[in-house]
Amino acid sequence: MTGGQRHDAGVRGFASDNYSGVHPEVLAAIAGANGGHQASYGDDVYTEHLQELFRSHFGPQAAAYPVFNGTGANVVSLQAMTTRWGSVVCTYSAHIYVDECGAPEKMGGLKLLPVRTPDGKLTPDLVDVEARGFDDVHRAQPQVVSLTQTTELGTAYSVEELTALCEHAHSLGMKVHMDGARVSNAAASLGVPLRAFTTDVGVDVLSYGGTKNGLLLGEVVVVLNPDAAPGVEYVRKSSMQLTSKMRFVSAQFGALLGSDLWLTSATHANDMARRLEAAVRDIDGVEVQRPVQANAVFAVLPKAVTARLQKRFKFYTWDEATGEVRWMTTFDTTEQDVDAFAAAIHEEMAAG
Amino acid sequence: MTGGQRHDAGVRGFASDNYSGVHPEVLAAIAGANGGHQASYGDDVYTEHLQELFRSHFGPQAAAYPVFNGTGANVVSLQAMTTRWGSVVCTYSAHIYVDECGAPEKMGGLKLLPVRTPDGKLTPDLVDVEARGFDDVHRAQPQVVSLTQTTELGTAYSVEELTALCEHAHSLGMKVHMDGARVSNAAASLGVPLRAFTTDVGVDVLSYGGTKNGLLLGEVVVVLNPDAAPGVEYVRKSSMQLTSKMRFVSAQFGALLGSDLWLTSATHANDMARRLEAAVRDIDGVEVQRPVQANAVFAVLPKAVTARLQKRFKFYTWDEATGEVRWMTTFDTTEQDVDAFAAAIHEEMAAG
Amino acid sequence: MTGGQRHDAGVRGFASDNYSGVHPEVLAAIAGANGGHQASYGDDVYTEHLQELFRSHFGPQAAAYPVFNGTGANVVSLQAMTTRWGSVVCTYSAHIYVDECGAPEKMGGLKLLPVRTPDGKLTPDLVDVEARGFDDVHRAQPQVVSLTQTTELGTAYSVEELTALCEHAHSLGMKVHMDGARVSNAAASLGVPLRAFTTDVGVDVLSYGGTKNGLLLGEVVVVLNPDAAPGVEYVRKSSMQLTSKMRFVSAQFGALLGSDLWLTSATHANDMARRLEAAVRDIDGVEVQRPVQANAVFAVLPKAVTARLQKRFKFYTWDEATGEVRWMTTFDTTEQDVDAFAAAIHEEMAAG
Amino acid sequence: MTGGQRHDAGVRGFASDNYSGVHPEVLAAIAGANGGHQASYGDDVYTEHLQELFRSHFGPQAAAYPVFNGTGANVVSLQAMTTRWGSVVCTYSAHIYVDECGAPEKMGGLKLLPVRTPDGKLTPDLVDVEARGFDDVHRAQPQVVSLTQTTELGTAYSVEELTALCEHAHSLGMKVHMDGARVSNAAASLGVPLRAFTTDVGVDVLSYGGTKNGLLLGEVVVVLNPDAAPGVEYVRKSSMQLTSKMRFVSAQFGALLGSDLWLTSATHANDMARRLEAAVRDIDGVEVQRPVQANAVFAVLPKAVTARLQKRFKFYTWDEATGEVRWMTTFDTTEQDVDAFAAAIHEEMAAG
Repeated sequence: MTGGQRHDAGVRGFASDNYSGVHPEVLAAIAGANGGHQASYGDDVYTEHLQELFRSHFGPQAAAYPVFNGTGANVVSLQAMTTRWGSVVCTYSAHIYVDECGAPEKMGGLKLLPVRTPDGKLTPDLVDVEARGFDDVHRAQPQVVSLTQTTELGTAYSVEELTALCEHAHSLGMKVHMDGARVSNAAASLGVPLRAFTTDVGVDVLSYGGTKNGLLLGEVVVVLNPDAAPGVEYVRKSSMQLTSKMRFVSAQFGALLGSDLWLTSATHANDMARRLEAAVRDIDGVEVQRPVQANAVFAVLPKAVTARLQKRFKFYTWDEATGEVRWMTTFDTTEQDVDAFAAAIHEEMAAG
Repeated sequence: MTGGQRHDAGVRGFASDNYSGVHPEVLAAIAGANGGHQASYGDDVYTEHLQELFRSHFGPQAAAYPVFNGTGANVVSLQAMTTRWGSVVCTYSAHIYVDECGAPEKMGGLKLLPVRTPDGKLTPDLVDVEARGFDDVHRAQPQVVSLTQTTELGTAYSVEELTALCEHAHSLGMKVHMDGARVSNAAASLGVPLRAFTTDVGVDVLSYGGTKNGLLLGEVVVVLNPDAAPGVEYVRKSSMQLTSKMRFVSAQFGALLGSDLWLTSATHANDMARRLEAAVRDIDGVEVQRPVQANAVFAVLPKAVTARLQKRFKFYTWDEATGEVRWMTTFDTTEQDVDAFAAAIHEEMAAG
Repeated sequence: MTGGQRHDAGVRGFASDNYSGVHPEVLAAIAGANGGHQASYGDDVYTEHLQELFRSHFGPQAAAYPVFNGTGANVVSLQAMTTRWGSVVCTYSAHIYVDECGAPEKMGGLKLLPVRTPDGKLTPDLVDVEARGFDDVHRAQPQVVSLTQTTELGTAYSVEELTALCEHAHSLGMKVHMDGARVSNAAASLGVPLRAFTTDVGVDVLSYGGTKNGLLLGEVVVVLNPDAAPGVEYVRKSSMQLTSKMRFVSAQFGALLGSDLWLTSATHANDMARRLEAAVRDIDGVEVQRPVQANAVFAVLPKAVTARLQKRFKFYTWDEATGEVRWMTTFDTTEQDVDAFAAAIHEEMAAG
Repeated sequence: MTGGQRHDAGVRGFASDNYSGVHPEVLAAIAGANGGHQASYGDDVYTEHLQELFRSHFGPQAAAYPVFNGTGANVVSLQAMTTRWGSVVCTYSAHIYVDECGAPEKMGGLKLLPVRTPDGKLTPDLVDVEARGFDDVHRAQPQVVSLTQTTELGTAYSVEELTALCEHAHSLGMKVHMDGARVSNAAASLGVPLRAFTTDVGVDVLSYGGTKNGLLLGEVVVVLNPDAAPGVEYVRKSSMQLTSKMRFVSAQFGALLGSDLWLTSATHANDMARRLEAAVRDIDGVEVQRPVQANAVFAVLPKAVTARLQKRFKFYTWDEATGEVRWMTTFDTTEQDVDAFAAAIHEEMAAG
């Protein structure tokens, strides 16, 4: 049959929160939005409702622009936030720097100014490493600080850290972009509402992530500061990120944000990561890296062990040189999954 | 409830094939692909199966690269088909020229060379209007002929016309791109298999359209000539068109192409357009434009009539100057829809 | 010897005003600016003086940004005048559309919207052919009208025509760019000061041409409306158009604009074109095209005659299809040159 | 008078080799190329001769493409050497990374992958820091290693170092670009012919610098490996780097490379730097940085001393944080200049 299942839906791993599928409530929302005709390109009732939802979470000035994926959300945001002569300060581990095949440069003509960090987090001092040369025509002008919350290294900025960072950026005349592919995990980790570490601290534009939080696909460029992203609706279209049947993207966010689903899913994923950390923390030879503040555990372990483990469970080596691996949890990771995996780690470590 | 319906699923119009929703079999396929973990970015069983499906329809050399939307499919294709110094001959009515907010130029740096046509169709002679200046360094080099099948004006190229066009383009050292947002409607209209007017006539790269044929979203860059699009997999990523949970895009195409669904849906849409044409063709004052060869009827009628009709049914004015309107049908247009609309046209025309 | 002459300095033709060399006064100015050290990138006394000169010609608000060449001047201007989502209305014969190898699209991501004209001149009505779709996200937003004065077809806009065009563009919220590669010829042709048909009619940014008026090289982006080109100094650098030893470009303009040299050179070139026109106008079979209003004569003559003439004098065929040729005069064209060429045309026409 | 001198031609400093003017022999060559008409855009006898000169210095396969400036030479080279999905490994101090206002990214869509170095020089190991992720679609593909000879930090690669670097790059399937803004200083420093550390070691494309070696302006993209830069002539035009009156750029290089002028000028500049180094090396509190291998001396000295010195002589602070300054010499620096400057440094250091 055409709608047939070709995979074993009972298999899960620790490779990526992109490996998981669609939350049942989200799938139901897609079905609910189906049937009949709705205006395309965002003039539908689901996208209208989306605006309300984002305003309720981020304040009355927020405006939401659904896009397809995280790279799209980031590159649309950054283009709309910069002039032709702008550059963007980010970390060396930022998704926009390492994982987008040069989309910011190739599509947006953006110069990225990467800064090395110990934990994936910028600080005012680290920003200053590259936020300089203002008024020097030989230097692409630093106009945006782009940070990732939670970071690509599994850490979370505190509200205080973000406040300081935004204040500093603004004092330099720069705007702040947050890559929030895992922004829900951040809210769960910090235990505060979404706006407490976005709108309220001064983030100007947010790439709000849905895909890693149980959507089929969908991210939203959320303009928190109405002056920060002129022309974003044109940039979205010219960046090939305007979906025609937008109701189906918006309806998914309706499922996510219209209830606590976004938060319960993220909280669960975070809990599973901490459960995994707790289960392996004391194993001799397994060194958990950095604080586990979201839905990822990074650890260094013997490469031979990794090799054997990867035959049993899917996960990625993060750094071939050091043997650091990444274990990700997601909304559908179960306690049994974690416990079985932790047991396997124990076994394989014991096997030497 | 979060999955709730916010619109009247019984309302349909004639505005666009993007206004319709998802075919139930496609929705079932999405659900069928859900559950458990599958590798992201295309390393899943559904995308693997997709390759088989496209090879079965387009020949063993075909390779399929799913993307999000039509603009994305076109701009990825054209970038992969050209060098930095290339230009693209197209029509003045081409979607890539008029409806993509400059994406080809802004994202791909592509120079488009538009040619005026009576019916949206290029011919070898029309190509020659702009396919010139080879070896002149002052001229962006014409490297691709991009045509749309069926055209933006509701017409279809015949197999013979496409054969001549591809031969001519190839004789000039140019490649042929087909914007196939409505390629299924073309197959239905011509009554031949998909490959008969693509692979077999020499089309090099096809933007295969799914969205207008009943998908939630999804198009496929189909590389028919393996030498025609080097690096397409990188270009897809840098163009922000690589979806992480690709299984859900691929599974939709599985529903479409794994049975006759693609063809029956397109055939039905075409039939509804012809039914509408037949019902209004003889009305005095309604002038149907160009042959109706796909799922669109273009007609000139009095602007006052249009204004009244648009209060009753959704459709677009195509050309404010001439009063030309566009009526589109889709897989879910019913005979009753057509008949009611035709009756309304009769009524409003009679009202003067 | 290294400074040796490798060509016959007594040979001139009618191919292009780029074929001529450097006016002796300009060469002297280069030598005068030599010796010692001067700050680079424009912080020199010659560039400082340049600002005064441009203000004296174009008004106290004018700001001058020297660049290397005409394509550079145009693409820097247009980038600085547009946002990322902008498009530019121009003619089909515009240098930016046909002769820059796609630089506006490839370097600036600019979408050009070409309009066909009989004589290379835009009008408000012709602008309206493409200046539409404001607020439509699917359309790159028309932000600039770019016209060429004198045109690529040898015609000149009158002050009245330009006034109407600028008023119309501004009424649409668009800016006006003038490609003034031959702006001096326009002043000579119209018999009015430079500012009378630039600043005073509302042109926002001018590409001021020096190369075709006797410089070694050099053009100037002249920002006439201070709000029209934010960031132009950054765009100049990122567009690879910032010269390090700028004193030598600026000093050339000092020679040109610090006296009447710019005008006498242009007037002479125009006079030579009219002399040529007068000498051939009455030859049966030579059809001069369009009014001769600058330093070019376009004519249709038998292809066999053209072929023989081109063995004796250098000039270009403008349109292979119609047999239209272009004869250009320049500051160093002599009356004897013109008379000898006209005599040759008479001879070859007589030879049939 | 229009050709008048506006500056004191007797004043020189140590700010930049761009502050100096035109060597008298070069100026004579410009004058020698003047008069009469010569075909534009490179079809002139001076550019024809240029090809011979470059072949004599770089081997029979070399092809020379004159451009305006160093940024232009680099960005044209890198575009021609890469596909749309390419990236470029360079140093953190590379001109292309820090001093071109993002031209590589903004004009070429190039992603730069900067590596930190102690002395401005890449090594195979340092290349490997970023030359990775081949075949990973998420990573812009490393296709070029770009190095600067002599470096922006005043050091020179040895022939052996370059051989190892080129071999390594080629073993990775990457090409090698050399930013040779000061390539003449390198030849003078190494005491070998130009081709010994370019063509012969495997450099694929060279940005040959003329401006810093006594030209008015002019650089040349030298394609040493004929397969390395397809379409370079189109890229030059679309990158706004094709000069119309090319004879005047080519003739300057004729003066430079047709005799030993290029080498004597560079040797002299280098000698003056070493003379300066020798004169200050033993001053307590003046710490010369890195080996002085070209025409620059970098030194750390007390900021108060720098401030007083800068009132007497022009030079730049290189690093505000450390107090490192840069002193550049050039073809017209005299021994007296150096001695007077060294004396001033002694004086001001003594003054504390």
